[in-house]
Amino acid sequence: MNPVERLMAATADDMARVNELILARAHSHVDMVPELARYLIDSGGKRLRPMLTVAAAILFGRGTGNEVNFAAAVEFMHNATLLHDDVVDESDMRRGKPAARMVWGNKASILVGDFLLGQAFMMMVETGDIRSLGVLSAASAVMAEGEVFQLAKTGDLQTSSEDYAEVIRAKTAVLFEAACEVGAISGGADEAGCKALALYGLELGNAFQLVDDALDYGGQSGTLGKNVGDDLREGKMTLPVILALQSASDSERAIIANALGNAEASDLEVHQVVAIFTRYDTLKRTFSKAQEHAAAAVAALNGLPDSEMKSILIDVVEHSVSRAS
Amino acid sequence: MNPVERLMAATADDMARVNELILARAHSHVDMVPELARYLIDSGGKRLRPMLTVAAAILFGRGTGNEVNFAAAVEFMHNATLLHDDVVDESDMRRGKPAARMVWGNKASILVGDFLLGQAFMMMVETGDIRSLGVLSAASAVMAEGEVFQLAKTGDLQTSSEDYAEVIRAKTAVLFEAACEVGAISGGADEAGCKALALYGLELGNAFQLVDDALDYGGQSGTLGKNVGDDLREGKMTLPVILALQSASDSERAIIANALGNAEASDLEVHQVVAIFTRYDTLKRTFSKAQEHAAAAVAALNGLPDSEMKSILIDVVEHSVSRAS
Repeated sequence: MNPVERLMAATADDMARVNELILARAHSHVDMVPELARYLIDSGGKRLRPMLTVAAAILFGRGTGNEVNFAAAVEFMHNATLLHDDVVDESDMRRGKPAARMVWGNKASILVGDFLLGQAFMMMVETGDIRSLGVLSAASAVMAEGEVFQLAKTGDLQTSSEDYAEVIRAKTAVLFEAACEVGAISGGADEAGCKALALYGLELGNAFQLVDDALDYGGQSGTLGKNVGDDLREGKMTLPVILALQSASDSERAIIANALGNAEASDLEVHQVVAIFTRYDTLKRTFSKAQEHAAAAVAALNGLPDSEMKSILIDVVEHSVSRAS
Repeated sequence: MNPVERLMAATADDMARVNELILARAHSHVDMVPELARYLIDSGGKRLRPMLTVAAAILFGRGTGNEVNFAAAVEFMHNATLLHDDVVDESDMRRGKPAARMVWGNKASILVGDFLLGQAFMMMVETGDIRSLGVLSAASAVMAEGEVFQLAKTGDLQTSSEDYAEVIRAKTAVLFEAACEVGAISGGADEAGCKALALYGLELGNAFQLVDDALDYGGQSGTLGKNVGDDLREGKMTLPVILALQSASDSERAIIANALGNAEASDLEVHQVVAIFTRYDTLKRTFSKAQEHAAAAVAALNGLPDSEMKSILIDVVEHSVSRAS
């Protein structure tokens, strides 16, 4: 079994309850709501975020049982974000299927996203755990803020590595952080334990997004294939582009600038940009950055006693970075 | 002073704190967030919902001070909904100004709406009042559900009066209900007091939306003017249309069906539809329905001791219904 499969096995009992709750709470007397919600929710995502919530609770002994509600809430928050992101990015596909907005339209995707967010908060409130509610509501605001920041930076050639670090922290890592932190709280962790898991989640999330952003260009080696260069055509200022612009000659900058945000950019144009990335090693450097964050995630767990779950969480980090190699 | 002005005067001290909080919490280091949020928030809405929260707290003696946070949260929830609704309805104007989506685009409107919702929950969480959090998070989910239901019923000639009652309850009345209920809770009301204020808010909200839906066709008298018939062109199945379809002849049904959901419908076509409404008194009957709900709102306060604030709340109901006469 690979580490994610081991995580699945170790969280299977709780995740069965989480999945039941997810199904129950996607219900509505308005048929379009569960139809659209389940189309996305059942579309084969790994449910990594809720598994992390459950795993963090198990790591500390599973004190309150609240982790089931929080895990389902985290998955709803994530799916609400996906629905809105696909509208914002005008994405046609999600997880190998037509995006929900292509089936039910943008309007329903926006509104069902809002519904899932409302349901997420209801599930959180039911726990009565005001501290975890604070963690997740803050995450919700920061995630939206990060998406706006990313939108504002779209196609902006002046975007810095620091801007990028802020975008991925806000739009991705903060939910990983919150998912792990509320799991630890539910598991009865002390302050140091909660902090350790929060940092683990944050750094895993950072690594995860960096790897995703390298994979969008085919991974470390810049292999071309299906959907390679989507971020480029959408004008997303991810680290491979930012690093390339810092080193590029004027003519190289012009090639990148022409393709960036150009939905009609040809495969050849994308290929030329990836060739520039290769020249300056920007995909490899993005991957190295991911490895730094991965190391920080693993280090965050240093102070915790060894256990089967701890070793799984460590291996999950290494596995998620290995996707890009 | 009219009743809304009296409400403003009676809540002025608390509303000054609410407005400060609203400004502070619309802040973000991402410039586009406060720019867009303040454009909408400062655009001259009456802030009726947060005033009701504050008024309900004052009515019961203002126990905890939490009403300030809840009032600001209610206004953020309302504005988040407006941002998303304008995208969904493809509205060009809002409160006499170009809608935010016309200035910053649909994408930013979706994401800033999400941000306001996250901030709303943060402000609620800060009170530590888990009961009120339950009320408002449930309202949040129901509102989105109501919007999806309305979307699903768009242009559906089979829509019943009961469907319509469900739509306006969910999309409008539930937030009025929640705004009043959490105000009462913050004010230290007993169970009967909380229930009375919740019912008052619900029925006021129902009356409010019925009046709005009659005003969209020029009010009781069906006077034509600017933006008259927007709902018709958007295919919204509001009560005036539903009642007309129930009584109409085949040829009248055809006239309504042709204009319904037809963004290009001419003023003449709208005029013909309004003439059918007049024939069957459907605007007057919509207004009568609003008056029934208004009477129920006033009756909800019967069991409460008389006070200046109670008389203001009663007069606000009558004032809001009088808009349509």
